[in-house]
Amino acid sequence: MSARENVNIPSGNEEEADHRPLVLVHRLPRFVLPFDMRTTFRLLDPISSAADEPPQDFLSRHAPSIRALITVGPAPVNADLLDLLPSVRLVVGSSAGVDHIDLNECRRRGIAVTNAGSAFSEDVADYAVALLLDVFRRISAADRFVRSGSWPRKPEYPLGFKLGGKRVGIVGLGSIGSEVAKRLVAFGCRIAYNSRNKKPSAPYTYHANVCDLAVNSDVIVVCCALTKETHHIINKDVMTGLGKGGVIINVGRGLDLFEKEPDVPKELFTLDNVVLSPHRAGLTTESFEAVREVITANLNAFFSNKPLLSPVQYE
Amino acid sequence: MSARENVNIPSGNEEEADHRPLVLVHRLPRFVLPFDMRTTFRLLDPISSAADEPPQDFLSRHAPSIRALITVGPAPVNADLLDLLPSVRLVVGSSAGVDHIDLNECRRRGIAVTNAGSAFSEDVADYAVALLLDVFRRISAADRFVRSGSWPRKPEYPLGFKLGGKRVGIVGLGSIGSEVAKRLVAFGCRIAYNSRNKKPSAPYTYHANVCDLAVNSDVIVVCCALTKETHHIINKDVMTGLGKGGVIINVGRGLDLFEKEPDVPKELFTLDNVVLSPHRAGLTTESFEAVREVITANLNAFFSNKPLLSPVQYE
Repeated sequence: MSARENVNIPSGNEEEADHRPLVLVHRLPRFVLPFDMRTTFRLLDPISSAADEPPQDFLSRHAPSIRALITVGPAPVNADLLDLLPSVRLVVGSSAGVDHIDLNECRRRGIAVTNAGSAFSEDVADYAVALLLDVFRRISAADRFVRSGSWPRKPEYPLGFKLGGKRVGIVGLGSIGSEVAKRLVAFGCRIAYNSRNKKPSAPYTYHANVCDLAVNSDVIVVCCALTKETHHIINKDVMTGLGKGGVIINVGRGLDLFEKEPDVPKELFTLDNVVLSPHRAGLTTESFEAVREVITANLNAFFSNKPLLSPVQYE
Repeated sequence: MSARENVNIPSGNEEEADHRPLVLVHRLPRFVLPFDMRTTFRLLDPISSAADEPPQDFLSRHAPSIRALITVGPAPVNADLLDLLPSVRLVVGSSAGVDHIDLNECRRRGIAVTNAGSAFSEDVADYAVALLLDVFRRISAADRFVRSGSWPRKPEYPLGFKLGGKRVGIVGLGSIGSEVAKRLVAFGCRIAYNSRNKKPSAPYTYHANVCDLAVNSDVIVVCCALTKETHHIINKDVMTGLGKGGVIINVGRGLDLFEKEPDVPKELFTLDNVVLSPHRAGLTTESFEAVREVITANLNAFFSNKPLLSPVQYE
């Protein structure tokens, strides 16, 4: 499906008769809305608009009728954009994290923000466990070893480590962190966690700071949102606390393995004890369908003045 | 630790004073006993014996005093070997499967056989889940993709699939299969199984034959022992039943991915949807320690006329 096929190109007559709510698709050129929503909404996309009109002119022309926008991927929603769109009252994020959306600006202007809710949580949790198993049991490295033809020559491949009994510290016990904990309990891991506040209902050991958690863990799994408080939360002290044999699994948004994706530090390519992943933790056929549903539900609620499904709470 | 360091080389005087029970180490040249048992047992190893004596002569010379032997890896225990060792009354296997031991010959001669019990079960179950996650979420393939430098050029990497909700059919609900089921329940999978008999205590759907199981599954995990009945149990009918999108995970002994390891069919190297593993499902630092313990416990029980810890039941 090309980006162009997935948006509506308004032409005079159609527009008159069309009762579908109008929604702006806000995206960077290399991201497209990965599902079809045209039966429910009239989508406007400045990047793939029919006329070769500069996006800014396109926006100005449609601004008065644009009350809601969908952000695709990490397209920033900031004061500059919102200045162009004075009628917008809803920003629908399509990811779990909303660090690309300026929440202060939205609050100031009375704009509601929604995120993907827990649409990605189970898939991201699965991925975190997959990465942990891969590091402990050397799955990718072993696959590389066999494919290179080394096996017949070097039968003494290094041993892996058992997951059971290991102390796993989860940073951020939200919907993703809780799903990670549930899975790792079944492997016999001992779970502890750090979060802003102790969760009375969680049956795991709480540590008020990440360093304490690291000192008491064999593995750290980073599942928190990217905020001012969590930026660079895994620092030298935490790594020293975790120790030399420690393992860090990172599925936290913005904290992802690569600070400037898709550019990966070449040094990592030579390391056999690292698993490299192209920011895919949440991306499955099923999660895309779940995100489509949550976006649709939020937009429908907004256009019929009902409560939003997954509103982001302002601090 | 070299093979030589790990065995005792009897020399006249020492042998007189040594009260440790004598145990034969039976192995193929490329396998060594991966842990030290010399504080408890006097180990005899024909392959690394000090004198360059042919193994057969070595065996004949020591045979009258050899009452127990440890098999390392897949070294076959058959009538030819047992003919050379008329005093043997115990064969201690160091793996979960005992398909390399001729159980009929052992029974006929009144020789007891033990296996590794459940020492490997949790690690093998972890590995099965790791392989399943890898195939569903393309972990190894994604790592290969990033390492090849393709990410910046091809941002449209294919989506993975969600584990939750998938129907997983387990072939063989023994100690490994049960551990696999326990883990996959935590991922939200729906579990069914096939085994010789329905297990009244197992809360999963039972299918009396593997084809029925396959027809009703998205994934098949092979966890059964290799016996005459299970040889080539995953045949064309089972694969057809599973269907084109189906996934097969194999951690069953002797049923391993490669029939003639370490020689891997070169055709597999070109497939991106296959994870290749050099027969490592059970091999961790922790499982080796567990195996050492179960071998020691079986030998100690035997030499003090107590019940064996993990005897193999003859059919």
